[in-house]
Amino acid sequence: MTASPDQRVIRIDDPRDDRLAPYRDVRERDLVGREGRFIAEGKVVLNVLLTSPHFATDSLLVLENRLSGLSEQLKLCPPDVPVYCVSRETMDAIAGFPMHRGILAIGRRSGQHTVDTLLAAMPEHGLAVVLCGLSNHDNMGSIFRNAAAFEADCILMDETSCDPLYRKAIRVSVGAALKVPFAREGSIEALVSKLQRAGYTTFALSPSGKTSINAAEPVQRTALLLGTEGEGLPKALLDRLQTVQIPMSKSFDSLNVATASGIALARFSRFSGL
Amino acid sequence: MTASPDQRVIRIDDPRDDRLAPYRDVRERDLVGREGRFIAEGKVVLNVLLTSPHFATDSLLVLENRLSGLSEQLKLCPPDVPVYCVSRETMDAIAGFPMHRGILAIGRRSGQHTVDTLLAAMPEHGLAVVLCGLSNHDNMGSIFRNAAAFEADCILMDETSCDPLYRKAIRVSVGAALKVPFAREGSIEALVSKLQRAGYTTFALSPSGKTSINAAEPVQRTALLLGTEGEGLPKALLDRLQTVQIPMSKSFDSLNVATASGIALARFSRFSGL
Repeated sequence: MTASPDQRVIRIDDPRDDRLAPYRDVRERDLVGREGRFIAEGKVVLNVLLTSPHFATDSLLVLENRLSGLSEQLKLCPPDVPVYCVSRETMDAIAGFPMHRGILAIGRRSGQHTVDTLLAAMPEHGLAVVLCGLSNHDNMGSIFRNAAAFEADCILMDETSCDPLYRKAIRVSVGAALKVPFAREGSIEALVSKLQRAGYTTFALSPSGKTSINAAEPVQRTALLLGTEGEGLPKALLDRLQTVQIPMSKSFDSLNVATASGIALARFSRFSGL
Repeated sequence: MTASPDQRVIRIDDPRDDRLAPYRDVRERDLVGREGRFIAEGKVVLNVLLTSPHFATDSLLVLENRLSGLSEQLKLCPPDVPVYCVSRETMDAIAGFPMHRGILAIGRRSGQHTVDTLLAAMPEHGLAVVLCGLSNHDNMGSIFRNAAAFEADCILMDETSCDPLYRKAIRVSVGAALKVPFAREGSIEALVSKLQRAGYTTFALSPSGKTSINAAEPVQRTALLLGTEGEGLPKALLDRLQTVQIPMSKSFDSLNVATASGIALARFSRFSGL
């Protein structure tokens, strides 16, 4: 390791060092209780973490040969955040598998949004993405990425949806999981009722939707509801909402839910007329 | 195992049995020469394989408790195709990792398309997807899935793009990699020249594209060109083609290439007016 003038950088050679405990066996750690903490991977995600008002950073873990490329990030990083610097061998021993990226951080929520606070903070022309039972972390991450790209104002999801702050979801989202405000709580019925009371028209995306997405008229306050792949949205919900479908082949009517979210956001966002 | 009346079903208990060799260590096998053979996983992909005129099936490998659910597929399967039936323990020992799906098949190309044969077979209102340097098998599979959903007529890719018949690409495509005709050959410049001679207008999708995708007018013969993430399309190519962009956030201008393909196909396919 080249000597660093940064006093925060702490060289560690023993993978059993207690200070590295939060990084140990990250794949398993994802699946257990984490008390609002999460793992951010890679430089792009780290940039989002360090500039977000909603998250704090506990520490960084950086491969020795990646440190010199992080000078911009270290400037953004509060002075009391330790930066642990390790060899490739130590990194792999800590992570429990070959950790190619070489840049990790432990992030922490500095608060938690609720559906009510998010809806109260929405702009006049709000666009919300609403998720029901979304269980795949890749899809969750991709939907956040699309929501950020098309500037949806928030993502609301029922309690059966998976955690957007799971390591892989954050990575796939390219940091958007730390950028787009979200709340995860209660049943999908309770969510839809709250949206209705707040003046939102909910468009439920479904292969059996009544209106083509190309014919549906965007409204002032739009909620785009997406269900999990496989089962899709509960029929009782489809019966009482406006349903839209993406016209496609009759012989291969299968789009990934994240791709469907991208197509729907391209259509319903403020960018659709540009 | 319940006794099967199907004479093709062969129970095997020794994971070292030579007949299982094509299935051994499938993760590594994906990366080496396979002589036109590939691994199909899961019931949905198997359905596509067994009904495709362009592929043949060497054999099936099925977990004992999945066999009874495959009666429809076994009817579609030629009588000389052996169906190897194994226990969970044997399956995992063969695959080299826990193989959850329990249904595998070895497929084989019965011929190979070229760019010339595919272009010659295109309909009057052809829609081609063209890929340059696409290296991620997930994205490759997703693009095939989108192409099938929006009925693109073929996918053409340069020789630096990855193999759509890689196990994971086929799985992510939900079988579309066995459904949408494709050719992979030569340089992207040669591909674009062939498209031009065949009367195609190539729209190159790029964040720096001159025209909004919402304003671009579909033409009779459309080719949609997508580059790999990161580097994107070569500048020399962008300079001489019509370029289109998907309008999105200035502060998060990052869509996954497969998602971008879905949005572009929704816009340029025959379904865009429906």
